Amino acid sequence: VATLQPKNPAFADAVRRSFQRQRIMGLLGARLSKVEPGFVEIELPFREDLLQQDGFLHAGVAAAIAGSAGGYAALTPLPAGHRVLSSEVKLHFLEPAEGPRFMARGRVVRPGRSITVCELDVHAIEGSSARRCAWGSKTIMNLPPAA
Amino acid sequence: VATLQPKNPAFADAVRRSFQRQRIMGLLGARLSKVEPGFVEIELPFREDLLQQDGFLHAGVAAAIAGSAGGYAALTPLPAGHRVLSSEVKLHFLEPAEGPRFMARGRVVRPGRSITVCELDVHAIEGSSARRCAWGSKTIMNLPPAA
Amino acid sequence: VATLQPKNPAFADAVRRSFQRQRIMGLLGARLSKVEPGFVEIELPFREDLLQQDGFLHAGVAAAIAGSAGGYAALTPLPAGHRVLSSEVKLHFLEPAEGPRFMARGRVVRPGRSITVCELDVHAIEGSSARRCAWGSKTIMNLPPAA
Amino acid sequence: VATLQPKNPAFADAVRRSFQRQRIMGLLGARLSKVEPGFVEIELPFREDLLQQDGFLHAGVAAAIAGSAGGYAALTPLPAGHRVLSSEVKLHFLEPAEGPRFMARGRVVRPGRSITVCELDVHAIEGSSARRCAWGSKTIMNLPPAA
Repeated sequence: VATLQPKNPAFADAVRRSFQRQRIMGLLGARLSKVEPGFVEIELPFREDLLQQDGFLHAGVAAAIAGSAGGYAALTPLPAGHRVLSSEVKLHFLEPAEGPRFMARGRVVRPGRSITVCELDVHAIEGSSARRCAWGSKTIMNLPPAA
Repeated sequence: VATLQPKNPAFADAVRRSFQRQRIMGLLGARLSKVEPGFVEIELPFREDLLQQDGFLHAGVAAAIAGSAGGYAALTPLPAGHRVLSSEVKLHFLEPAEGPRFMARGRVVRPGRSITVCELDVHAIEGSSARRCAWGSKTIMNLPPAA
Repeated sequence: VATLQPKNPAFADAVRRSFQRQRIMGLLGARLSKVEPGFVEIELPFREDLLQQDGFLHAGVAAAIAGSAGGYAALTPLPAGHRVLSSEVKLHFLEPAEGPRFMARGRVVRPGRSITVCELDVHAIEGSSARRCAWGSKTIMNLPPAA
Repeated sequence: VATLQPKNPAFADAVRRSFQRQRIMGLLGARLSKVEPGFVEIELPFREDLLQQDGFLHAGVAAAIAGSAGGYAALTPLPAGHRVLSSEVKLHFLEPAEGPRFMARGRVVRPGRSITVCELDVHAIEGSSARRCAWGSKTIMNLPPAA
């Protein structure tokens, strides 16, 4: 979409550098797997210590990787040096999240001057099968570079 | 409220046991600090590896502890052996979450036969000051004991 | 999707009869324009008395027609006599809603035994152009026939 | 709260004038019953043509009056001439809304420079009893005066 023409030609580098600074992503074992204009994908391998009491991926972990994917998707169209801040998020948990690998995606639905709206989802991946276990939306504030 | 009269006299033990099985809470360093009928509080000490790229508590970590607090609040009024499953959650991020300690609370707003609605919040605690940095709501499905 | 195979062969009639009983839809001038398995569309012609203070369609009117479309989409896969009840709804208002005609759509994202999740949107239609002005999601409880 | 000190001494008049221009409120029969700094209340008498198919207040009507109450609550602290625009809304429907009169309230939870977050609720009023039937939150954009 024309409106998603990134103003920062190095947008993917900007996202990757910022992701490295999110130490929580490292703690969870998440890695950035795709960065495109208006779209970011994060992968998370299964780990026992990411589960809730019944053996599924904890809803909060799904929210953490989906929220990061959305925040970074919102960063891709912004000028160099601009920042994003989460305003609100909603997630539906569609199915228990179970599998060897999870994939969170954020996609810009409406880029805006001061706020951006993204669609979020999380899939459980097993072989060639991908089951969507979480789906939702997020509002992100666009901020100018820190003074 | 009469409707929050716990049907399981050992409701607090049930919550504590389930919390121990949520290994993600241990990974984050969160601990259960209060369990009352319709109310659960979780504490999280500051740690560098829980932050996002600008040095604030990652929104996903706030969502994880708030969501757990809400889920367990919803568990308190249920009969022994019953379980809860997250249906959806919404959180507003009111202020950047910064401080030596965070406190997440879940409170039952409407107990129901098949679904429970909870209010969630997260405060940043510093000395005697508590600033609310996240606020929202969650829908939880009540499930009978696993067969 | 196989799971959206309607259990009630007369599902479209059931939706149409129920819509007729929603007198608020008549008050707003809304009409049911499409009923398919897992999908319902409602049309609303422009009227001066549906606007907010700046001349756009009132967000609450957009929410009313989108919510009805979602509720009826959730009704389509249910057995004859079953009912639906709104549990919660979230809507993003993407653009000011302006135009001679509006179209709300509800689409089942996840059919379930006790709750259904739907995607909602509202477009402003002008000639061959359709601009999406609202987008969101809704959780609906499935209820057995009234005793 | 100090931050809710209205910058416009005539804030209540500004809200009342704007409410008069929301013709949809007139169509529904809603009236503004209270305007305070950070708080607005709207009353709606029962009418047959506001109901959904099972005889309860239509969720969309509840959303319309709650959303208006929240939008106007967000307007109260702003300077004269400023405007508000709905960004997103979430509502839980806690109980079927039934009664001779409904009361919607919006309350500012976090006033901000560019966005305001409000809490919303709707009560069904019958004599001295008030049952809360809807509860939620709304994000509102603050806009400078139109050029």
